[in-house]
Amino acid sequence: MATPGIVNVNIQRTENGKWVDMEDQLAIEEPLEISIAFGQSQNRQTKRISVTMRTPGNDAELALGFLFTEGIIHSLADVQSWKHADTLPGIESNRFLVELNPELNFELSKLDRNFYTTSSCGVCGKASIDAIKTTNAFTKQTSPIKINKDILYTLPEKLRLAQQNFESTGGIHASALFTKDGDLIALREDVGRHNALDKLIGYFLTENKIPLNQHILLLSGRASFELLQKASMAGIQMVCAIGAPSSLAVETAKEFGVTLVGFLKSNKMNVYCGETF
Amino acid sequence: MATPGIVNVNIQRTENGKWVDMEDQLAIEEPLEISIAFGQSQNRQTKRISVTMRTPGNDAELALGFLFTEGIIHSLADVQSWKHADTLPGIESNRFLVELNPELNFELSKLDRNFYTTSSCGVCGKASIDAIKTTNAFTKQTSPIKINKDILYTLPEKLRLAQQNFESTGGIHASALFTKDGDLIALREDVGRHNALDKLIGYFLTENKIPLNQHILLLSGRASFELLQKASMAGIQMVCAIGAPSSLAVETAKEFGVTLVGFLKSNKMNVYCGETF
Repeated sequence: MATPGIVNVNIQRTENGKWVDMEDQLAIEEPLEISIAFGQSQNRQTKRISVTMRTPGNDAELALGFLFTEGIIHSLADVQSWKHADTLPGIESNRFLVELNPELNFELSKLDRNFYTTSSCGVCGKASIDAIKTTNAFTKQTSPIKINKDILYTLPEKLRLAQQNFESTGGIHASALFTKDGDLIALREDVGRHNALDKLIGYFLTENKIPLNQHILLLSGRASFELLQKASMAGIQMVCAIGAPSSLAVETAKEFGVTLVGFLKSNKMNVYCGETF
Repeated sequence: MATPGIVNVNIQRTENGKWVDMEDQLAIEEPLEISIAFGQSQNRQTKRISVTMRTPGNDAELALGFLFTEGIIHSLADVQSWKHADTLPGIESNRFLVELNPELNFELSKLDRNFYTTSSCGVCGKASIDAIKTTNAFTKQTSPIKINKDILYTLPEKLRLAQQNFESTGGIHASALFTKDGDLIALREDVGRHNALDKLIGYFLTENKIPLNQHILLLSGRASFELLQKASMAGIQMVCAIGAPSSLAVETAKEFGVTLVGFLKSNKMNVYCGETF
């Protein structure tokens, strides 16, 4: 049976001088066009707002999570319905339409500014952070959660065991959410790390479980500004990365009261801000 | 002396139960706003066309390389001048302006479509590839270069030795160009892998050395559609990645006659398309 998100290809592998023809597995990368419909009946419009290169699967979570972390919707109540915009037989649909609630006060003119301020930035890191504050419902937390470091040490191995598509392709990012006790609740994979996180947050949005302020987010790779911005939009207070954070990721975490751990291994880690114990 | 692109921060590290306060180095991530000026004197306009999260340094190469790989400029002759758009004392400038040649036939109305077709995609992978063909001067190569595998095996170690900022931060991507004999010509680093490649191609654009069809491109991480698209725009025929390629990266490489190697190590590799010997 075909594994979702993976395709088999024929390759040549060489090792120590010997050539072998063999089959290899690749992570699928395909575009997803996300559109929204908005406005009251007589003025209802449809607008394409993003095209992202993603691994097919969990497209609804990706679209909803994207709209949420970009500040276009604030809860599931802002959405009327969602669906793939075309369903041609035998063709994986790469168009997704989210129907916003007609009552939602959505201004198209704000869209450009919105994207500029959230997913990309302002004209400096500080301005980027200031900008996302205006769209974030969960500003600086007053009582950050503390997690025992021995619980954190168990997470990389749990991620590795659960990350099936990485195991077979070596080419896919993951975002996973754990309880405070270190139990895995959900994991999403994608060729784009921002998509993996949007899918994960989109899932919890559909479950009406946001804010996620009593949980641990684990990122399979590095932590960038964009990932910290998305995490903070979902109220996440504890972010761990297997890889390194960037300068702006640390500044964003500090600003939103997020504890940020990098280079998390089974017996060591770096704490860039916030507290563990 | 401060290293460009790196910032020192105070962190807490814990290992085997002991906590240590120490200094760590992070890759700097800051926005760069790229604008172009175009048109004849009386109709001259300035338009912001991109904001990318990048590691400061080689901003001119990044801006020029971006405009080139997006198909907005086709050679250095299309450009009149370039500069940081503001130079405030003590503040790293995050705005960059490229003055296009007034004679260049640039149509603003094509810009949206252009971005849609090149940096993102169409509505499926196949359409994405078809779209970039229309803007690519170097379509399918007739006589691909062949590189001895023993030369390829030497490249990862050469990259590692040259990649200083990765060594200290663990959080930065690199793109490097080698001769057919495996000699390193240039390397660029960035928190964004697409930026690292735009900087590298931008450098060769300013040296008037494009097409780069007798060279080897080495990517420090995974190979995505976007990276293969950029490489093909510069006429590169040989792309090696330390990590995995995506499905669409392989399809793009095939379409443009690029040899694509993944999981390159010191004694083994996977050849996804094209030939080595």
